[in-house]
Amino acid sequence: MRVFFDPAQRLHAPVAELYGGQLIDPFESPQRADRILDAVSHLGTASEPRDFGREALTRVHAPDFVAFLEECWEAWAAEGFAGDAMTAAMPPDRREAHCPSHIEGRLGYFAFSGESAITSTTFKAARASANTALAAAEAVAQGAKSAFALCRPPGHHCMHAQFGGYCYLNNAALAAQAMRDSGAAQVAILDIDFHHGNGTQDIFYDRADVLFCSIHGDPDRAYPFYLGYSEEVGRGAGHGFNHNFPLPEATAFAAWLEAFEAAAGHISRFGAEALVVSLGVDIYESDPQSFFRISAPNLFEIGRRIAQFSMPTVFVMEGGYANDELGANVARVLTGFTG
Amino acid sequence: MRVFFDPAQRLHAPVAELYGGQLIDPFESPQRADRILDAVSHLGTASEPRDFGREALTRVHAPDFVAFLEECWEAWAAEGFAGDAMTAAMPPDRREAHCPSHIEGRLGYFAFSGESAITSTTFKAARASANTALAAAEAVAQGAKSAFALCRPPGHHCMHAQFGGYCYLNNAALAAQAMRDSGAAQVAILDIDFHHGNGTQDIFYDRADVLFCSIHGDPDRAYPFYLGYSEEVGRGAGHGFNHNFPLPEATAFAAWLEAFEAAAGHISRFGAEALVVSLGVDIYESDPQSFFRISAPNLFEIGRRIAQFSMPTVFVMEGGYANDELGANVARVLTGFTG
Repeated sequence: MRVFFDPAQRLHAPVAELYGGQLIDPFESPQRADRILDAVSHLGTASEPRDFGREALTRVHAPDFVAFLEECWEAWAAEGFAGDAMTAAMPPDRREAHCPSHIEGRLGYFAFSGESAITSTTFKAARASANTALAAAEAVAQGAKSAFALCRPPGHHCMHAQFGGYCYLNNAALAAQAMRDSGAAQVAILDIDFHHGNGTQDIFYDRADVLFCSIHGDPDRAYPFYLGYSEEVGRGAGHGFNHNFPLPEATAFAAWLEAFEAAAGHISRFGAEALVVSLGVDIYESDPQSFFRISAPNLFEIGRRIAQFSMPTVFVMEGGYANDELGANVARVLTGFTG
Repeated sequence: MRVFFDPAQRLHAPVAELYGGQLIDPFESPQRADRILDAVSHLGTASEPRDFGREALTRVHAPDFVAFLEECWEAWAAEGFAGDAMTAAMPPDRREAHCPSHIEGRLGYFAFSGESAITSTTFKAARASANTALAAAEAVAQGAKSAFALCRPPGHHCMHAQFGGYCYLNNAALAAQAMRDSGAAQVAILDIDFHHGNGTQDIFYDRADVLFCSIHGDPDRAYPFYLGYSEEVGRGAGHGFNHNFPLPEATAFAAWLEAFEAAAGHISRFGAEALVVSLGVDIYESDPQSFFRISAPNLFEIGRRIAQFSMPTVFVMEGGYANDELGANVARVLTGFTG
């Protein structure tokens, strides 16, 4: 399996995230990447991606959003704020909202969630993460059976034009779009992160050429709370091409596998020519953000089941916050896949 | 002029607000009330309001929102969070959003802005603030020429079903509704706080019986950023009964007065039988949140002009954060009014 990683991803290191009414050490840290990098070294040396350019980003993101990400820090710093760029305000009704010119207002306009900070190097790191996903997609498009994009910051929460949930650019969506642009008529995305991939859903919600299936903690009880319900099935041409499997607290692996097999059925019937897996190992039972009962051996089995699609597959790293087991857990899924 | 104040308002004292990417001492503090109370003592002893009951609140707020405010702290504390209740997540699209059952999701569902915390005593203080406004409205409805409701936490940002901007219940809207319920066929609200009264606008946006006029810092450059533009003129039956006067940075008093006279024209033509003034003295040139050039003597002149409506008038305290001058500035407006 090809592995891709860009060291510039480490540059994103906010001082804090907003959690439980306090500013705490971010769950999503640069050290996560290094833990995973160490644990997957048996798969081969990680390749550094090339720069795919800004144009690649606007294949799935709004140009004004990408411009905002690039300009945010300078405008924020110019106001003399003491902390990283974090938003308090957000539009009560985004569809009718003005995009204000003041950076505090712009920041909220382009955010859907307020815990995640933008620093002087966030855009650089997010682009490195996006390039990593694009390089993995390119390798698979060029004939590799599979590739692992070791991405952080993660991406699946990032919407067409809003960042949040530790995500600034949607790496999995970029990989899927790149597969489409390389000739795959239909691409499926399977999101197994503990949290619903609201950003990926948002990006492909109106489209029939990219199928999105997400298995996750019920948003009634888990972040991102407002999207990820089973009745969200796509819109317009995309109707029937979005499938959510929200699962309740204390879900055991057998119940998780039932959802997986239902998603697998959708993917098989869809006739996908390539698969992108949003790989979050925060489903692990000891993860601080999980409420599933999924053990380390279960993760190996998940990898094994994904291999049964027998499709060109791009794994894109998403969440996972049980630091001591993080690298090993990622390796379990990938080793289960490679067999 | 009758003055009303409830000491229970002091109970709302969050540890911090989110500002500039940091948790800082809240601008909106209990000490604000005491500074104002001292400065207006020449108007007479402040009366404590009676409790108008929960029913009064749901005249302008959604019942599930009021229930949320009451239940929030207990649910938050039960999760073991270390800080006051502060939201990070908010619905990307509120009109189609589920209200999740987990308190983190509920908190964001009922918030439009994330800087403002809810503590164990916030609801009690907000109710005391609301009762203060209702008592002032009652006094005027019963024949007093004018009354000053010394309210804090303030109210004008609080929407029909969302808190934020230091506001948890909309005191001015409650006062206007109470005047309507006491027999005034038409009530005007004049909001002169530096920030747009987005909550009051939201509550009366579809109604022709309550006119809303707001003079404020251009939301393109100032909080609340996403509402307060001049093209927001009301909807349905309320079309033509909402008038915003956004003013640019460095607005001098002469330009402010032009907007005031335009608003006054709307109020006169409307034929209001009673006036509610959302009194924010954060328009003062040395206020940390202001970008207007309005001096202390100008505030006296504003009070004098408001008196020229010759209408039963309820002043409801909103913002003002230049602590050393806060009490004196409020007294300037009220003394200008009483003459």
